[in-house]
Amino acid sequence: MIKIDEKKVFSTIEERKPKAVAFQAPDGILGKTVDVASKVEDKYGINTFIMADPTFGICDTADDYADALGADIMFHVGHSVSVERMGKNTILVDAFDNISFYNVLKKALSSLNGYKNVGLCTSSQHVRQLEPVKRRLIEKGYMVHIGEGKGLLRDGHVFGCEFYPVFNIRDMVDAFIFLGSSRFHGLGVALSTGKPTLMLDPYVNEVVDLGALASERLKRAILGIYNAKDAEIFGVIVGLKDGQIMKQRSLKIKKDLEDRGKKVKLLALREVTEDRLAIFPHIEAFVQTACPRISIDGYTFS
Amino acid sequence: MIKIDEKKVFSTIEERKPKAVAFQAPDGILGKTVDVASKVEDKYGINTFIMADPTFGICDTADDYADALGADIMFHVGHSVSVERMGKNTILVDAFDNISFYNVLKKALSSLNGYKNVGLCTSSQHVRQLEPVKRRLIEKGYMVHIGEGKGLLRDGHVFGCEFYPVFNIRDMVDAFIFLGSSRFHGLGVALSTGKPTLMLDPYVNEVVDLGALASERLKRAILGIYNAKDAEIFGVIVGLKDGQIMKQRSLKIKKDLEDRGKKVKLLALREVTEDRLAIFPHIEAFVQTACPRISIDGYTFS
Repeated sequence: MIKIDEKKVFSTIEERKPKAVAFQAPDGILGKTVDVASKVEDKYGINTFIMADPTFGICDTADDYADALGADIMFHVGHSVSVERMGKNTILVDAFDNISFYNVLKKALSSLNGYKNVGLCTSSQHVRQLEPVKRRLIEKGYMVHIGEGKGLLRDGHVFGCEFYPVFNIRDMVDAFIFLGSSRFHGLGVALSTGKPTLMLDPYVNEVVDLGALASERLKRAILGIYNAKDAEIFGVIVGLKDGQIMKQRSLKIKKDLEDRGKKVKLLALREVTEDRLAIFPHIEAFVQTACPRISIDGYTFS
Repeated sequence: MIKIDEKKVFSTIEERKPKAVAFQAPDGILGKTVDVASKVEDKYGINTFIMADPTFGICDTADDYADALGADIMFHVGHSVSVERMGKNTILVDAFDNISFYNVLKKALSSLNGYKNVGLCTSSQHVRQLEPVKRRLIEKGYMVHIGEGKGLLRDGHVFGCEFYPVFNIRDMVDAFIFLGSSRFHGLGVALSTGKPTLMLDPYVNEVVDLGALASERLKRAILGIYNAKDAEIFGVIVGLKDGQIMKQRSLKIKKDLEDRGKKVKLLALREVTEDRLAIFPHIEAFVQTACPRISIDGYTFS
């Protein structure tokens, strides 16, 4: 069960005495966030706003909207990193899942034959399970490697867009084990490291080999780039979310393309979706700088 | 054919000498806006950004994003009103359609039997057709009324959310004629005035009586309110778009509901869609203050 760090929410409110607060969370835990918000209203008698638009990471905070709503604090739940605050008024709040990996790990041990050095990683909500899983793998005779978090990430922790804790140890390991049920994160581990990657999903007790999926995505990405070589008219997309605005990089790409005789239209978008790009049928290829995963997952940029 | 007022774009750029500009437009004319942007790049050698997220009106401008992109001017195309500028850097640009209503009006004359006093109205892109249509109706013996625009709107001009030019003359007329192909706007005329409303669509040469559709929407809205009477847990939604943030009104509604013993969750959203509300299955009824049309068109708030 996912548990939001309510204590941090309460203690922050007691310390800073805000007039109103807002909460932002990924869809999967937005319902639970509503419960925390209700507790805050009951306990402190202040208004709490639930930001109900999607948020995909700490690149997707909502400081300006907090201002517009008169909320002094924006609690951003579930995309936690090793820092506590971001921007003007965003406070990061942990949401940890206490589900055990014991059973799925037992199942996985049979798939690990032939591997001696195993890399271990996970997304935010399961970081506390890294140590127990590591201990058990060592008991079973494996060499277990957990990449250092350094900067923003915790040890063994990966984002959807940031994989250095696994990338940096890829040469030491025969395969990676990703703890969790997010194919999106597991796939990123497989793609960034090029190593066999097993996802241990504790909810359905399933061990998923992500090799085939990673290979298909990689082929599609290469095909997209290959197709774009023939394009004459490009759309270069700048993301508009707080942490996704890479204007200079987009302008550099525009210039590079123009120097090669291509026509370029600059587009700006909050959510880069196939639907929105379909409005520009005369644009033959799109390049976007908002998020590395957009071009790989689900959209066909050709 | 829709023609964007390029001259205004060019003269504004020549006068203000911006380093970069951005363009915002409703989906239907976003493609044409790209052409204008390309002309600007060729003529003045500056970068132009196309805002590719949807925009539904002058409540939905993007000043802050212009800042983020380093664009000194945001040309907002096609949602024109009687003022020229909005916010920090938005310049409103007309997009007029020169399609003739001659044929569809000929067809309509047979449906107007029994009406003597006719009210005439349209949305932004056809305002120039009001006078020729008026003249022809007068020739045919009708009394024609065009409501005064006053403030933001032009004479006979309606928005999706603002209908005073028709509302104010409703007692003088037997029926309204709406020029255009937007059921959304025509429906608003019918709902706000309670009068028979004919939409004259010049593109498919069709005369559409909006009575049945208006009656169905009205019934659905009444049913929604009726259903909400039994709800114990309410979601009160604040819109997040520039011109849709009605925080105080939402807080007042929250208080009124709480005073009547209801539980209230405050939600904040950019795009209020059924998909996003489905994330909160325990909320039994939603009230939103972002836009009067959201609760009527397409969403079932029950």
